[in-house]
Amino acid sequence: MTTPRIVYLNGAFLPFEEAKVPVMDRGFLFADGIYEVSAVLDGRLVDNAAHLARLDRSLGEIGIRNPHSLDEWERLETELVARNGLAEGLVYMQVTRGVYERDFGFPPADTAPTVVMFTQAKTVAANPLAERGAKVITVEDIRWKRRDIKSVALLAQVLAKQAAVAAGVSEAWMVEDGAVTEGSSSTAFIVTQDRRLVTRPLSTALLPGITRAAVLRLAAEADLVVEERLFSVEEARAAQEAFYTSASSFVMPVVEIDGAAVGDGRPGPLGRRLRALYIEMARAG
Amino acid sequence: MTTPRIVYLNGAFLPFEEAKVPVMDRGFLFADGIYEVSAVLDGRLVDNAAHLARLDRSLGEIGIRNPHSLDEWERLETELVARNGLAEGLVYMQVTRGVYERDFGFPPADTAPTVVMFTQAKTVAANPLAERGAKVITVEDIRWKRRDIKSVALLAQVLAKQAAVAAGVSEAWMVEDGAVTEGSSSTAFIVTQDRRLVTRPLSTALLPGITRAAVLRLAAEADLVVEERLFSVEEARAAQEAFYTSASSFVMPVVEIDGAAVGDGRPGPLGRRLRALYIEMARAG
Repeated sequence: MTTPRIVYLNGAFLPFEEAKVPVMDRGFLFADGIYEVSAVLDGRLVDNAAHLARLDRSLGEIGIRNPHSLDEWERLETELVARNGLAEGLVYMQVTRGVYERDFGFPPADTAPTVVMFTQAKTVAANPLAERGAKVITVEDIRWKRRDIKSVALLAQVLAKQAAVAAGVSEAWMVEDGAVTEGSSSTAFIVTQDRRLVTRPLSTALLPGITRAAVLRLAAEADLVVEERLFSVEEARAAQEAFYTSASSFVMPVVEIDGAAVGDGRPGPLGRRLRALYIEMARAG
Repeated sequence: MTTPRIVYLNGAFLPFEEAKVPVMDRGFLFADGIYEVSAVLDGRLVDNAAHLARLDRSLGEIGIRNPHSLDEWERLETELVARNGLAEGLVYMQVTRGVYERDFGFPPADTAPTVVMFTQAKTVAANPLAERGAKVITVEDIRWKRRDIKSVALLAQVLAKQAAVAAGVSEAWMVEDGAVTEGSSSTAFIVTQDRRLVTRPLSTALLPGITRAAVLRLAAEADLVVEERLFSVEEARAAQEAFYTSASSFVMPVVEIDGAAVGDGRPGPLGRRLRALYIEMARAG
């Protein structure tokens, strides 16, 4: 017998089918909300404190009160993981500015934020895509200017990812003024021919990736040379290796960019090593 | 006895309290949807065919199938207006890519779009704000690059409008590269000292306003000189008059920009005249 899927909504753990929000929810009408995704491995949350800190920061940037303390969040997530019997996958969290008669300006300050959490079962560690490597295309970055805020206003990312799907590849890297900003739902890295790890520095142009930060820490511990700087599509194509990172893909080797092989067209040693180090760290908790 | 509020949702006319969407709706998770707003005056829809044409165009731009013909839409809107006993206000319509397990790429092509419609009672013709004139502030335009698509990814507009509310004014005009693009939920117009009507030309930088188009037609019929070109904040401040247009504000005179009076600080004759012409046209049906 499979465990019935349970969703957390505003204080209650509900059967999946009952988890509904009023059409006046500002998440539905205005994309007026923030989300986070934490991976689950061996039934445990991965790097969750960092995700909750980013959630708190994003909420603060758009003036939504964080409805829970970090401890409360973690307790709710842990209960949701347990109720769904989830061993591996992810926990999705979303907070919106709540339900109120439609009007662009904020509702009264005492309007309760909407809180939704659900899990998705997914093979995150033993992912076959990581063995063969992912292909990516590049697309124009048409997003708004506050990409450091992890908002649910994701239509541009949806269109970018769909362009990737239509091209038969796994991810779209977005490009602005000739430089890669990030993937539609991931951070972009390259390894130069002289084996330097390069990723874009943090700014309002991209999301401060939690897995990005972990990988930079692991790289520093492994005495790799790291450069946080802009890089072009041409430099990425000429790289020795490339990979992307996210909460659910961990470190994903990239073997092809816009149809051209990266390196020898197979996952490179540095990406594979960082993936192994990341999973080791995640399993160690 | 007041009429109970009725919402249209996916084929059913429901009591307001029952109109809910699953948390997996892509409108809620990804802002993956389109909306429209048509005014209602004397119980009749205003310029509705143009709104439905824009809805169809926006849906096409992001690859959502329009679930209804224009005739079906109008029939549903008319029934909703009647069921709510609405004499004056607006009809809000939203279509999302539907309900499917969360993933950035599009769901299967046979996924049914979600359709929501509700009404809001509002004084649109005899609006006291039009008598005293609206104040606006200017803010940086931080939106994405496809503002010609009327998507529900409205967080930037929400933040702009809230900045206006916090400043005690009615609207925020967004500025990019020194030029006004449009208001957070309206189109911006100025009248130069030599009485030329100026508004920004259509492009991906702004929404093709339905009321904008109607006002340009009315202006041409009244033999006014119209210039569709970019204008700066400085030029707007030095203008003889200014106003903004939208489905629910019609033609709204602007009497102050960033704290400085426009003209003599009262609604100007040209804005008032265009407002009267617009309402006359709307009432004529």
